[in-house]
Amino acid sequence: MKKRQVPKYYQISRDIITKIRNGKLATGQQAPSENQIIEKYKVSNTTARKALHEIEKAGWVKRVKGKGTYVRGDSVGRSINRILGFTRNMLEEGRVPSTKVVDVRIQRSEHCVTIRGRRYTLKGPLCRIQRVRFADGIAMMKETRYISTKFCTGIEKKNLEGSLYEIYNAEYGIGLERASQMLSAVMLEGGDLEIFGVEKPIPAFRVEGVTFCGRELIVEMEESIYRGDMYHFFVEAD
Amino acid sequence: MKKRQVPKYYQISRDIITKIRNGKLATGQQAPSENQIIEKYKVSNTTARKALHEIEKAGWVKRVKGKGTYVRGDSVGRSINRILGFTRNMLEEGRVPSTKVVDVRIQRSEHCVTIRGRRYTLKGPLCRIQRVRFADGIAMMKETRYISTKFCTGIEKKNLEGSLYEIYNAEYGIGLERASQMLSAVMLEGGDLEIFGVEKPIPAFRVEGVTFCGRELIVEMEESIYRGDMYHFFVEAD
Repeated sequence: MKKRQVPKYYQISRDIITKIRNGKLATGQQAPSENQIIEKYKVSNTTARKALHEIEKAGWVKRVKGKGTYVRGDSVGRSINRILGFTRNMLEEGRVPSTKVVDVRIQRSEHCVTIRGRRYTLKGPLCRIQRVRFADGIAMMKETRYISTKFCTGIEKKNLEGSLYEIYNAEYGIGLERASQMLSAVMLEGGDLEIFGVEKPIPAFRVEGVTFCGRELIVEMEESIYRGDMYHFFVEAD
Repeated sequence: MKKRQVPKYYQISRDIITKIRNGKLATGQQAPSENQIIEKYKVSNTTARKALHEIEKAGWVKRVKGKGTYVRGDSVGRSINRILGFTRNMLEEGRVPSTKVVDVRIQRSEHCVTIRGRRYTLKGPLCRIQRVRFADGIAMMKETRYISTKFCTGIEKKNLEGSLYEIYNAEYGIGLERASQMLSAVMLEGGDLEIFGVEKPIPAFRVEGVTFCGRELIVEMEESIYRGDMYHFFVEAD
């Protein structure tokens, strides 16, 4: 019986995926180009293109328009030294961000958070926004933001499906100066599992934070849950 | 039947513990002093002292010699913008650090870690040290450190029960310049549960990092597990 031949383009795609899997091609690196594949594997440009398409289809690389093809890990990274919105973070990671607004309301009472033994208070009335943020259609994090209505009057009437940081800037002329944040490792359980579409408890990051527009002027507070199976946090210390 | 009287000092201690519990007295804040208790509750200094002793005995405050009495939460904080050893971190948190060395060996092969899509390699031979770090006798984190034997020749023969950063500095004249780190949220399971003396899976932080003494000179790499029920990580973003 004749042994069934595995197509060349498929062999090449598996070879490259193996390199991604074992870390020889790291997340964020440029994937091999069509020309590199032609040269290395001595194949036609049709085969090279099919191999690349195969790898992309399997989700291991991502074409970013006008920038090239990048190796894409299972998880996304987030720099925590920077004030970085979800939208921009996802675009930098080569993902398509989207947002589902779950609830928007004006809250009369104040909101407090204690970070590093310091208690911060944002006086009411404030605007409380609950949202779920997606990357390529996958729920990545859920957040509750408490926003100063003194700085952002009428924000509850805006379109809240994109970056709030952009709204602060474009609509209210507010530039963010610094953020003080606390990270906890928690278990995702109960109703949260449904939001994230997972079946059994997974580890997650909880981030509580205060964001300032001036030295001590609080624009917003947040409580967010980032799923631990999809996120890595990066930090540079010195 | 006469109603049994709850001693005054005990009532005061419960009152103060309630304030710690509900966050009115935050972790790291100065606890009420003897004089403040005398004044507020109109009691003798003996009663005030007994109340403070009661709170300390229950673990809610910690006397730091020459500094005063501080509110102590269940958990400890760690700043991740700073290169900060466990020993110094715990001292700053008012805890007594100790270390159990589990294994020390010279490893011929290299060690690699990929952070933010960049792959770092520390060439062998290197010194691999596994330790468990304690605060007030409680296991807080376990770590594996991979240390350059080029920079730290003979480190495997040193007393490794304290701060490695101090050894780098005092014995090898090495100052640390920066660290690049990656945080993951993971579940503590299997044999790790025994190390930390917990019975069922708990969330934890995994930290993988590279520490540099010059721009691109690697002194060490680490893989650490910080128990999530005892740790918060803090970060200042700008």
